[in-house]
Amino acid sequence: MGAAILSELLTEILIPVAAVIGIVFALVQWLLVSKIQLTHEAPPSSRSNKNGAGDYLMEEEDGVNDHNVVLKCAEIQNAISEGATSFLFTEYQYVGIFMVAFAVLIFLFLGSVEGFSTKGKSCTYSKDKTCKPALFNAIFSTVAFVLGAVTSVVSGFLGMKIATYANARTTLEARKGVGKAFIVAFRSGAVMGFLLSANGLFVLYLSINLFKLYYGDDWEGLFEAITGYGLGGSSMALFGRVGGGIYTKAADVGADLVGKVERNIPEDDPRNPAVIADNVGDNVGDIAGMGSDLFGSYAESSCAALVVASISSFGINHELTAMFYPLLISSMGIVVCLLTTLFATDLFEIKAVKEIEPALKRQLIISTALMTVGIAIVSWLALPPSFTIFNFGSQKEVKNWELFFCVAIGLWSGLVIGFVTEYYTSNAYSPVQDVADSCRTGAATNVIFGLALGYKSVIVPIFAIAVSIFVSFSLAAMYGIAVAALGMLSTIATGLAIDAYGPISDNAGGIAEMAGMSHRVRERTDALDAAGNTTAAIGKGFAIGSAALVSLALFGAFVSRAAISTVDVLTPKVFIGLVVGAMLPYWFSAMTMKSVGSAALKMVEEVRRQFDTIPGLMEGTAKPDYATCVKISTDASIKEMIPPGALVMLTPLIVGTFFGVETLSGVLAGSLVSGVQVAISASNTGGAWDNAKKYIEAGVSEHAKSLGPKGSDPHKAAVIGDTIGDPLKDTSGPSLNILIKLMAVESLVFAPFFATHGGLLFKIF
Amino acid sequence: MGAAILSELLTEILIPVAAVIGIVFALVQWLLVSKIQLTHEAPPSSRSNKNGAGDYLMEEEDGVNDHNVVLKCAEIQNAISEGATSFLFTEYQYVGIFMVAFAVLIFLFLGSVEGFSTKGKSCTYSKDKTCKPALFNAIFSTVAFVLGAVTSVVSGFLGMKIATYANARTTLEARKGVGKAFIVAFRSGAVMGFLLSANGLFVLYLSINLFKLYYGDDWEGLFEAITGYGLGGSSMALFGRVGGGIYTKAADVGADLVGKVERNIPEDDPRNPAVIADNVGDNVGDIAGMGSDLFGSYAESSCAALVVASISSFGINHELTAMFYPLLISSMGIVVCLLTTLFATDLFEIKAVKEIEPALKRQLIISTALMTVGIAIVSWLALPPSFTIFNFGSQKEVKNWELFFCVAIGLWSGLVIGFVTEYYTSNAYSPVQDVADSCRTGAATNVIFGLALGYKSVIVPIFAIAVSIFVSFSLAAMYGIAVAALGMLSTIATGLAIDAYGPISDNAGGIAEMAGMSHRVRERTDALDAAGNTTAAIGKGFAIGSAALVSLALFGAFVSRAAISTVDVLTPKVFIGLVVGAMLPYWFSAMTMKSVGSAALKMVEEVRRQFDTIPGLMEGTAKPDYATCVKISTDASIKEMIPPGALVMLTPLIVGTFFGVETLSGVLAGSLVSGVQVAISASNTGGAWDNAKKYIEAGVSEHAKSLGPKGSDPHKAAVIGDTIGDPLKDTSGPSLNILIKLMAVESLVFAPFFATHGGLLFKIF
Repeated sequence: MGAAILSELLTEILIPVAAVIGIVFALVQWLLVSKIQLTHEAPPSSRSNKNGAGDYLMEEEDGVNDHNVVLKCAEIQNAISEGATSFLFTEYQYVGIFMVAFAVLIFLFLGSVEGFSTKGKSCTYSKDKTCKPALFNAIFSTVAFVLGAVTSVVSGFLGMKIATYANARTTLEARKGVGKAFIVAFRSGAVMGFLLSANGLFVLYLSINLFKLYYGDDWEGLFEAITGYGLGGSSMALFGRVGGGIYTKAADVGADLVGKVERNIPEDDPRNPAVIADNVGDNVGDIAGMGSDLFGSYAESSCAALVVASISSFGINHELTAMFYPLLISSMGIVVCLLTTLFATDLFEIKAVKEIEPALKRQLIISTALMTVGIAIVSWLALPPSFTIFNFGSQKEVKNWELFFCVAIGLWSGLVIGFVTEYYTSNAYSPVQDVADSCRTGAATNVIFGLALGYKSVIVPIFAIAVSIFVSFSLAAMYGIAVAALGMLSTIATGLAIDAYGPISDNAGGIAEMAGMSHRVRERTDALDAAGNTTAAIGKGFAIGSAALVSLALFGAFVSRAAISTVDVLTPKVFIGLVVGAMLPYWFSAMTMKSVGSAALKMVEEVRRQFDTIPGLMEGTAKPDYATCVKISTDASIKEMIPPGALVMLTPLIVGTFFGVETLSGVLAGSLVSGVQVAISASNTGGAWDNAKKYIEAGVSEHAKSLGPKGSDPHKAAVIGDTIGDPLKDTSGPSLNILIKLMAVESLVFAPFFATHGGLLFKIF
Repeated sequence: MGAAILSELLTEILIPVAAVIGIVFALVQWLLVSKIQLTHEAPPSSRSNKNGAGDYLMEEEDGVNDHNVVLKCAEIQNAISEGATSFLFTEYQYVGIFMVAFAVLIFLFLGSVEGFSTKGKSCTYSKDKTCKPALFNAIFSTVAFVLGAVTSVVSGFLGMKIATYANARTTLEARKGVGKAFIVAFRSGAVMGFLLSANGLFVLYLSINLFKLYYGDDWEGLFEAITGYGLGGSSMALFGRVGGGIYTKAADVGADLVGKVERNIPEDDPRNPAVIADNVGDNVGDIAGMGSDLFGSYAESSCAALVVASISSFGINHELTAMFYPLLISSMGIVVCLLTTLFATDLFEIKAVKEIEPALKRQLIISTALMTVGIAIVSWLALPPSFTIFNFGSQKEVKNWELFFCVAIGLWSGLVIGFVTEYYTSNAYSPVQDVADSCRTGAATNVIFGLALGYKSVIVPIFAIAVSIFVSFSLAAMYGIAVAALGMLSTIATGLAIDAYGPISDNAGGIAEMAGMSHRVRERTDALDAAGNTTAAIGKGFAIGSAALVSLALFGAFVSRAAISTVDVLTPKVFIGLVVGAMLPYWFSAMTMKSVGSAALKMVEEVRRQFDTIPGLMEGTAKPDYATCVKISTDASIKEMIPPGALVMLTPLIVGTFFGVETLSGVLAGSLVSGVQVAISASNTGGAWDNAKKYIEAGVSEHAKSLGPKGSDPHKAAVIGDTIGDPLKDTSGPSLNILIKLMAVESLVFAPFFATHGGLLFKIF
């Protein structure tokens, strides 16, 4: 078997060091962003051109000396930031209650496995050894759950704070040119990406080391308890995604339906009462929600890998370095992403609008290429040349280079999924242009073509996922799947930076419009935003792809822990689980879509009411009542996030308790294979509609011009498609990632209970 | 074990007798319909009121003596009938080539299993016996395939002929009142229902008896060969559904987009050049396609039951009566449906518009109640009190009353699915009314609410299917599932009558409009049509529900025949199959949706061209060129049906040959659990949008009036929804039934080949 080259001491040092480097790097980026002052005494440095005279971008400087604009921007930023903070605090109150209640539930369910006994029990896998009592596993699982939940909430909150800090600064920099604005938006995204990934790693590392003080050599129990961390992270993400998603789309759809369609005023016009709510929504939905979601994926894939490793040769022989392989991969990811970020902010420079999208794509390619080398190094240093992995009852021999392939294939499939998503959602390619063209014959053909595009866009990502699964599963069983997921998420800092860049640019555009800045500035922010739409779709592609792998890994870990050795489709218990599980994404989507629809209708009524009753609003002489719209979105999203949340959280508990682990396995497999398809098609359909509309609006080609301008019949049809796509791409689609992951991790945490007391219905009859 | 009460001789007599009764009853109904003459010498009898004087309906007689109208109706009917016949002949030419090619393929693949040897081989299940050589199995499978294909084609063609024969007659009767028109439409539907079910039964019965002349006591080989019948039926249904579906929706969408939206002329206006193509489409898509589809389901569930029975105690002990249990259930179904039909045509009478939908629903309830008794009788007479059923390697003991429950639960779940479908698609209930209400804020909210409704409508049917599967699977393994499917289809004659009634009424309305008949007549046909929309959705619900059970039964039979004893999700081969299989319905839908969209765009161009270039067309002084539109639909559907057809037909062959039976099992399970959801949600979303539009148009309640009238903004939004729903509910949704069934039956037929030579890729690497 042999031992790892890297010593245990060095492993214990390197991981926190990488985390600290990530955090420091994030702070430096923040510092750089904060140099752009949001007061009227703009320091001379911000007005001088550090790149030297004669810069192409400098010629375009536009209104840099207008201090009123700065004041106005600061004011709008404050309104958005306050709205977002107040919503998140309201959300966290409800979620806090849930967290406490669910923590109690975890304790009771897991404690009851051995009747709350404080006596040690024989280990599940090494029957001859004695492991810590189930009661303590219950306590530590509960603690891990709370830690995960708090980390997730903090990640989302920090992301939102940074984004609302950066949006007005991006607007101000846009006066100086598109390249400057790009750097601010991207740097701010990087702050979020690095803080989140480094924080996640650090808390996980600390928890494991603290838990080890109690568990000692009982690694099986230790890493079982650690899975609570993943559950905590993911359950917060659920509410973040669903609540934030409903918030943002209720405001967006409501604002568009009255503003753009009925009153014919532009997007983000300050006269629209829902405009602040709309901008708040971008931050609570696309930033905070997405941050929590990807943190959840990261935490879960690490936990899945760790729990499988704990019952493989790493765990049995107590090889700490090899055991920490998943954390070392993440550490390497932070270093690689740091290098990658320098390419965007310092080595290259954006000089024209058309360079934005390639620059963002280059980030993905660079990070993937560097990370491949990084994985090879980690696999060579941290793994013994040969070891065994638990494979549903038996131990499978694996070589270290095989594990390298598992991680690398996950990483590269992520890139493939990203590029396919781009192809189907960017208006630089024919699929979106075809959808735009179908607007000629009206909204109906636009919707038909858009739906068909979404369905079609599923094909390649599914093959990419299938190949990853096949290779990593064949090479290293469920551990292979878990590290493949980790591979896809290893460049999460870069992914998040690109992802967060989108809503920041979107907000920057909104602020430019509301502050009454020149058309030129707005054009620049629009260009940033259009690229952001595509990268947001890429980010969602990553999120879904990794969610599929993560939930399969969790599913495998659940099956191992529930001591099932086969999940046979040819048994009625499993098959009904499969078919009902495949139905759940539809039930869930029905709830979230309807919620957005109903909340949007309420918003429409309020916006109409304000336009009808506030004199001078349309003329711009009176101010709208932004706060009421913010309140409508807040109330609706808090109320509406409960039923879909309950569906996801209760299904594994009910199925496991009443129908048992076989049916639950079926439900998990069914919801996984069906949910991935619904999620990918929903995200891409929505992204394509959004960019088809932007394609017509921008009118850069002859073809696009023949469909426009704004206000033409094809454009109106495109706006309808865009509005339909909003809840698909920003509410129901991305929430489905969490549905499939969360049900799997919840089943994993409760597995000992289900295995002992589950299947009540079948026991009675 | 004991023996069946019914003697073998009586069994051999009763089945053909029931089939002949069904055929005779169909002919009698046809005779009654044909009494309404389509010449200007209307016989006195058709004008007298046989129900006595003072009839409420008689007072409404309207234009009965206008001979020109009759001539005009006859002329339009001819045009529709000719268009439909010519399309079907073109379609059958292409399909004929496919049929020959695929027959050769079956022969080659199955013949090669034992290297085309003419020596007998040891049986697969009873190893000690000698069965007929594989070469002869190949020959007989090929013959059964051709028989199934021809029967399917004939079923579809006859249905179309009857429907185009009845449509103008329904219009003429509508002059006399809604009750008379209802009876004509329903009778004509019944002709199709009975001809199809009786024919299917008769051909199957004959084939088995003829094949037995060669096979003798080798029942295993005999019923293996008979499965070719199901494959033939289903593969023709695929092209019928897809080709017909593209035809009908290209014409419908094209006609609506220019006629209703751009030119503001009513539906079915004779000035619209696509109007004949639209009406032809109803007959080739909704009638011929659906007829082939349900015939396919019927043939496949019978074959699945027979092939499992042949390796159970029935087959091993050569108990002919018990073996023919599935055919006896179908025979009983014909008798029960005959009685049920009399309720609609003779015992009750429709006196008002609002009685139509309840009358149709009553048909479902009566047939289900009677059939429950029928099943009990057949189970008691035809089955031994106790017997064994093959259950993936072992024999499971089953009692006759347990089998009764299997069939009955299938029957009753069908009713539940039917009623849930009605609830979600009829505008008498709140879901559709909510969708209609959302049209107030435009097309976007209408689409969002409609999609959410479709997703939600999946829940109860899936639970109904899951319960049926669980009960029948637990009681009698895969044989239980097969007979549950057969139970759902046992009242197929009534189901088809109700289903065919819809397009006939739709056509009748079209003819009334085109013949320039009075507003009153049109109102009556509209009322018939609205009820038909709901029943069409119910029919689709049945088709999908039964398809799910059928394909599971076929899947089970495939697994048994391929000698796999478990399909373990926890193996990479199976899991990648599962996830790729779940993707196939999306790929397939992307193709069919895009096909309809592209074909509709071509149609739009042609219709616009005619309006622009033919002087006097809008004024009604010049005739449009209907033939060109018919040609566009024909060419588009023939061309576009090939890629989705190839996807479905080639997937099992490619997966089975290169990846082997485990991966193929995964693909079948994945496409089944995912396809059912997509199919149900697509059908119901489309049905709901259609009826939301009709709700606004009819304006029967205060709420509906507040949304209308025709041409109001909410109505325009509703029309957009209706147009989007067209390809969902009539092309991609219903075709998915066939996707899941056909891949399963194809795998079953080719199972011996895959088991022997499959999995090439894994053998090489």
